[in-house]
Amino acid sequence: MNKIPKTVSRRLSLYQRCLKNLILQGKKNISSKELAEKLGFKSSQVRKDLSYFGAFGKRGVGYDTNYLLKMIERILGVNKSWSVVVIGAGNLGHALINYEILKKNGFYIVGIFDIDPKKIGKKIGELTIINMKDFKEFVKKSKVEIAVIAVPPSSAQQVADTIVESGIKGIVNFSPVIINVPQGIIVEEIDISIPFKNLTFKLTSNGFRGA
Amino acid sequence: MNKIPKTVSRRLSLYQRCLKNLILQGKKNISSKELAEKLGFKSSQVRKDLSYFGAFGKRGVGYDTNYLLKMIERILGVNKSWSVVVIGAGNLGHALINYEILKKNGFYIVGIFDIDPKKIGKKIGELTIINMKDFKEFVKKSKVEIAVIAVPPSSAQQVADTIVESGIKGIVNFSPVIINVPQGIIVEEIDISIPFKNLTFKLTSNGFRGA
Repeated sequence: MNKIPKTVSRRLSLYQRCLKNLILQGKKNISSKELAEKLGFKSSQVRKDLSYFGAFGKRGVGYDTNYLLKMIERILGVNKSWSVVVIGAGNLGHALINYEILKKNGFYIVGIFDIDPKKIGKKIGELTIINMKDFKEFVKKSKVEIAVIAVPPSSAQQVADTIVESGIKGIVNFSPVIINVPQGIIVEEIDISIPFKNLTFKLTSNGFRGA
Repeated sequence: MNKIPKTVSRRLSLYQRCLKNLILQGKKNISSKELAEKLGFKSSQVRKDLSYFGAFGKRGVGYDTNYLLKMIERILGVNKSWSVVVIGAGNLGHALINYEILKKNGFYIVGIFDIDPKKIGKKIGELTIINMKDFKEFVKKSKVEIAVIAVPPSSAQQVADTIVESGIKGIVNFSPVIINVPQGIIVEEIDISIPFKNLTFKLTSNGFRGA
């Protein structure tokens, strides 16, 4: 398999989601043209992306949706399961634990942490909120691979430092600040306001509202 | 001002966030090189993006951070305020209402809706959960511009149909299904699992875990 450029990874998740929907609809094959239309990409882009991992559609038949999905999931690392912890047991932490799509994609939340004595010991579904003091011990014992920062911005850097000290290499940051981590640690940032801004950019430039 | 390609809009949000942080740190000017390094872009990309809206850095001085931020916010449509409603008063709905960053960017949640009689009438902060039955009337009265879908996947399409009927043109969809809307309606989809997949893709391809 050729080395896949990291820029492709964002599109892979979109291919994955689209293929899952197609399979649910009973679709066994799809052409690059159809796939491109569904995703708003160019056909040439789709063919190029898929060729990176050796998938070539058959003329007149297209790609086998099940096979393509399996390949993409292997590349995305979602054909395995991953142990995830969430730091911050607020509404966002609660929402993440109940977000079925994480489990469906192999991301299992195995622990949730907080520093608030009123929250520690309380249950969310099958999980009990754990004292942040016990974080490093838990990570070591439970072989956690991913930590999610779901705390207010003012605590995000401190939490990130603790995560790094624990030996976890992957962080998903929901806090709207940029955190500093040493080399070798990978951070994915989610800013909930970004889709809203994309939307208003499009609404404004489409003339629905004066600029 | 030249027409800005839509592909640039995603990056604009990142520029905006970065500039806000820089201004908080007291930085008055920044070169395209520094900005590029902070964001992981190429300098040439930054210069190209910024030139779209007529911003040119001064040699040896760079860009005025405050001016640049204001221009970007005007283009993103976040220099005005937008009226937003949330459909679905679960954990995600609660999290969104408490997410300060939306307010900071001019997105004001003015109503939250549910169909669950146990939830209707309850308070979240200053908002009272409203019966979905009264949605269209509320939208008309309150001049709502953006609707957020925060319901389970099985109800997402039905909710989307109601939103479209209400006359709202912009939808942010947190439900992990693709919704169908007529032309002229703009949908931004957020799939919470995507940053997790991006992360595991990078963790796997960096050799932290065998592929």
